[in-house]
Amino acid sequence: MDAERRRVIVDTDTAGDDTQAILLSLLSDRATVEGLTMVAGNVEFEYEVENAKYTLQLAGREDVPVYEGAEEPLLKEHEYADYVHGEGGLGGDRFPDTGIDSADDHAVDFILDTVRESPGEVSLLCIGPLTNIALALKREPNLDELVDEVWIMGGAVNCLGNVIPSAEYNFWVDPDAAKLVVRDLDCHLVDWGLTVDASTFGPAEYDRIADADTPYATFFREITEPVREFTKAEQGLDGVTQPDSLAAALLFYPELRGESGTYYADVDEREGVTRGHSAVDETGMLDEEARTTVWHSADAEAFTDVMVSMLREGDPDAAVE
Amino acid sequence: MDAERRRVIVDTDTAGDDTQAILLSLLSDRATVEGLTMVAGNVEFEYEVENAKYTLQLAGREDVPVYEGAEEPLLKEHEYADYVHGEGGLGGDRFPDTGIDSADDHAVDFILDTVRESPGEVSLLCIGPLTNIALALKREPNLDELVDEVWIMGGAVNCLGNVIPSAEYNFWVDPDAAKLVVRDLDCHLVDWGLTVDASTFGPAEYDRIADADTPYATFFREITEPVREFTKAEQGLDGVTQPDSLAAALLFYPELRGESGTYYADVDEREGVTRGHSAVDETGMLDEEARTTVWHSADAEAFTDVMVSMLREGDPDAAVE
Amino acid sequence: MDAERRRVIVDTDTAGDDTQAILLSLLSDRATVEGLTMVAGNVEFEYEVENAKYTLQLAGREDVPVYEGAEEPLLKEHEYADYVHGEGGLGGDRFPDTGIDSADDHAVDFILDTVRESPGEVSLLCIGPLTNIALALKREPNLDELVDEVWIMGGAVNCLGNVIPSAEYNFWVDPDAAKLVVRDLDCHLVDWGLTVDASTFGPAEYDRIADADTPYATFFREITEPVREFTKAEQGLDGVTQPDSLAAALLFYPELRGESGTYYADVDEREGVTRGHSAVDETGMLDEEARTTVWHSADAEAFTDVMVSMLREGDPDAAVE
Amino acid sequence: MDAERRRVIVDTDTAGDDTQAILLSLLSDRATVEGLTMVAGNVEFEYEVENAKYTLQLAGREDVPVYEGAEEPLLKEHEYADYVHGEGGLGGDRFPDTGIDSADDHAVDFILDTVRESPGEVSLLCIGPLTNIALALKREPNLDELVDEVWIMGGAVNCLGNVIPSAEYNFWVDPDAAKLVVRDLDCHLVDWGLTVDASTFGPAEYDRIADADTPYATFFREITEPVREFTKAEQGLDGVTQPDSLAAALLFYPELRGESGTYYADVDEREGVTRGHSAVDETGMLDEEARTTVWHSADAEAFTDVMVSMLREGDPDAAVE
Ligand SMILES: [Ca+2]
Ligand SMILES: [Ca+2]
Ligand SMILES: [Ca+2]
Ligand SMILES: [Ca+2]
Repeated sequence: MDAERRRVIVDTDTAGDDTQAILLSLLSDRATVEGLTMVAGNVEFEYEVENAKYTLQLAGREDVPVYEGAEEPLLKEHEYADYVHGEGGLGGDRFPDTGIDSADDHAVDFILDTVRESPGEVSLLCIGPLTNIALALKREPNLDELVDEVWIMGGAVNCLGNVIPSAEYNFWVDPDAAKLVVRDLDCHLVDWGLTVDASTFGPAEYDRIADADTPYATFFREITEPVREFTKAEQGLDGVTQPDSLAAALLFYPELRGESGTYYADVDEREGVTRGHSAVDETGMLDEEARTTVWHSADAEAFTDVMVSMLREGDPDAAVE
Repeated sequence: MDAERRRVIVDTDTAGDDTQAILLSLLSDRATVEGLTMVAGNVEFEYEVENAKYTLQLAGREDVPVYEGAEEPLLKEHEYADYVHGEGGLGGDRFPDTGIDSADDHAVDFILDTVRESPGEVSLLCIGPLTNIALALKREPNLDELVDEVWIMGGAVNCLGNVIPSAEYNFWVDPDAAKLVVRDLDCHLVDWGLTVDASTFGPAEYDRIADADTPYATFFREITEPVREFTKAEQGLDGVTQPDSLAAALLFYPELRGESGTYYADVDEREGVTRGHSAVDETGMLDEEARTTVWHSADAEAFTDVMVSMLREGDPDAAVE
Repeated sequence: MDAERRRVIVDTDTAGDDTQAILLSLLSDRATVEGLTMVAGNVEFEYEVENAKYTLQLAGREDVPVYEGAEEPLLKEHEYADYVHGEGGLGGDRFPDTGIDSADDHAVDFILDTVRESPGEVSLLCIGPLTNIALALKREPNLDELVDEVWIMGGAVNCLGNVIPSAEYNFWVDPDAAKLVVRDLDCHLVDWGLTVDASTFGPAEYDRIADADTPYATFFREITEPVREFTKAEQGLDGVTQPDSLAAALLFYPELRGESGTYYADVDEREGVTRGHSAVDETGMLDEEARTTVWHSADAEAFTDVMVSMLREGDPDAAVE
Repeated sequence: MDAERRRVIVDTDTAGDDTQAILLSLLSDRATVEGLTMVAGNVEFEYEVENAKYTLQLAGREDVPVYEGAEEPLLKEHEYADYVHGEGGLGGDRFPDTGIDSADDHAVDFILDTVRESPGEVSLLCIGPLTNIALALKREPNLDELVDEVWIMGGAVNCLGNVIPSAEYNFWVDPDAAKLVVRDLDCHLVDWGLTVDASTFGPAEYDRIADADTPYATFFREITEPVREFTKAEQGLDGVTQPDSLAAALLFYPELRGESGTYYADVDEREGVTRGHSAVDETGMLDEEARTTVWHSADAEAFTDVMVSMLREGDPDAAVE
């Protein structure tokens, strides 16, 4: 069904789960990936870039261009999350370099050129800090009209965060960018709260891919293992969330989406206890313009099916047909 | 059972639901009210004081002294909530003045004198902004050791707030005081999230007191009506929360308490989008000392029973015996 | 003396005194103007652009390209200063449109292309808010090595500001940009304090150009008049500062420079009483890296001579030969 | 002239120069010291209290009561300045304990009782952080009408600070208190800028007391020496400021006062680069109510004379007669 095929740019700080979201974007017939744009986030920038390229190679899609973008947040000091993802970001620096060259242009130029060439036709799947998107906005105030949809993994909507109590990592790393983006763009938020509710893989989910020997499943196990151990050790839970994959899946498979609401949202960009906090006015108490769509629920089972089908068969779409 | 009788000072910005919490404290055999201490909050200070006295009179307890305290927050401009509670704070200024005199001492002195006289024996039930408690702390750094327990209605623990998306009213009005109190005292929090979950009176609950013609029930209906209408009009919900009564009930009736956890908590005292925000580290990600006990659940049905028994019979304890 | 001729990009929010700084850059043999880059500041963006073009036309230099850049600050709401400069920014909107087209490229691209083509050879004269420069920095982290010198009119170094007590207008309008620029670039600051000390034209200075009938002098009187009246009415002073011209003059004429020091500097980017405040550690109490050169004094008389020679003769250099 | 004799409470974090201000207050016939109130500041609280008592003993004035007050700032973590004053605060902990008992009451109660008893007759000389004064204000909103004058050593009015570039130590230690005090009280500020201009003792001033063998002069040399060495080592200057003594002298000796202005002032209470910053609107650009009187100049020579006369003769008044 060609009408459902979305053209998408994946903006990513590739480590761990970003790879799965990229794979999903590459392997699904629902998506045409125009390019990957790299942004500072989880681990050192050069690792992120190499991780993204490795993922392309794994999918046999070296033709998809990789554009390097912001290597640090808009204003804040950059803080990694490699204590979670292992050095390198894929459970240790063990994958061989691909030798793939990055594209010449800056990520922000690529984003702008692409959406200007096909106004309203290309969506942004944002699964890292929002620095590139914010810079694109500063260069093109009409970005909102030029893009199709903007889907963001980020924020902790009226729930506990993950990097500090009051914030989720992507918003926290570059809160200035996040503030700008939710202020000036209509966005879809797949936030940390939904991630925990609908994308946590525990023993039951692991079991479904434990014996799969496809390269995808092997890769998944390798990169997920250290995060799983980290979570067990630190939080006593045997479960790993798939936030970026969930964002990708909700973008490409509307049948997975549950309830949503569109609200006024703001982000606290200040240093301190609420850095990166997403203030989402779910009851309209502030009487401000509502333009951020928050996804409150998702079909967790179907999401797992999509992921398992992707990892076992290389065919995520099979699960929803 | 005398051992369960708690000596308590009720620190209150008396409007609406504060009156019910005070009534509960006065009418239950589980509590001995040492005095009421008044603090700036919901409505104009003089109305608050008069509301508190009216409540004492209604219960025939003019012997309980009323101490006036802070008439404005520690540092912030004072902002009322009389759009919720009606002018005067009891659904309009309709109740006659009592003629009861306030006690001579300042609320802070009364608190300090009382706990110093009976170290470890008197609890604080804080159902308004925390200005008085903060000032008591500044005057007596060892307050923590002098009080029995400190129960606070305040905060919005990793959930939507009520005055702004990121904060609950009591913490928001005097965030500096709230910050100080959760930093320097072991507290029990009955937050806005629990309030919504476990203390919302809807049509079913109203029905149980609709035909009661005791003065208590009449009073309740009179003060609750405008809030109920406000909530219906503004939020499309037929339900009114009883936050202060719930805090009182959980303090006096341990049998109503559900799950709790003790966490590190902080309050954002800065102006702006997160003023009064309570950051509660439920998973220990910050590795800070945990001293704030948050109540996650309560027996809502038993709480309703207590309230109904109080309003219909003047005997809240009957419901739990 | 060709060695002294500086290649310069003038980054400007053209209103009032910016025009004189541009004229100085165009008319002096000490400078080769590579282009003007426009940034949001004093008045509406389209007025600024037209003002800049009018100034080029006045100097017969329509060959100098005008590049449009950021039309609003990095993060903050844009606030004009047209109460000072008159609507339009040149004492009212009275000058005819020039019909000059802006160049195609974005100001930030022009800056980057130029300095990359001639590394170390082009200086930046920044006489507006620093949004464009900050965006250039975000696109090219090595900007510091690519530019020759960066001269900025901005900040209020340990002295009273002009838009609020604690800040100068250019830093205040886009404090995020200013923070970034002083953090990541070696800069020369011509701050508000020096401006008041060394560039205030009072009756004596006005007298020297009162009877000049060159187009430059006529233009100067027309644009300065409303500011002069504003200052008289608001502050009771008959004097107008020439901050942007002073910055240009100090860049091009080293013989006008007085004492300077190089210090650690930071800018407060937060909203509130210190938005745009420049914290300059003149005594090294913070032990941070010193990279901001603050000019403490200048030869005010020689500066006046340069300006008068420019306005009367169209030859600023004559005054220093 | 008895009419000129001022009744004063000295609120002090006694270390270094505080002792001289206290001595001046005790030894001048222009002042009657009602009591000393101690506040957290320069060094550990117990040292401060002992330093104050030692000073009383030196002057033979053990009859003056010492009231202990706030042992930490209103909200901020307490940070000492003992790197300046030496451990103990008087150039090392070398002075013997006095055995003098502190008064029973809390400093805040003493302040309130005193001014309530003699409304309009007692002035406050505040030469430490303003915590006690702020607490007094919170307990007595009408404090402004009850005190005679309030003189404060604090702030850095549109000039470089001393603890960070943007702030002076007393305001920086408890910025919340300073904000409250300048907002709610008419104050006289003797700021850091004036201190540097008019109270710096260099070699010439030291020479005048070098050979004096009075206990006062000996004491002065002992406590000033370490500060002098610190200043030489850190800042390359042979000079020590006498901020607290200058504030005392300007209060008691109007003949030493120079120019002043009354302005709107605010203090930044937030953590960060401008913590404790005093924003003083010297040109009225904010159109807010002016109630802070800033002293811009003083008779430095006469001030030195007063100090020398005090140290050599024990008679400060002799210098101005
Ligand atoms: Ca990611
Ligand atoms: Ca209340
Ligand atoms: Ca300008
Ligand atoms: Ca002091």
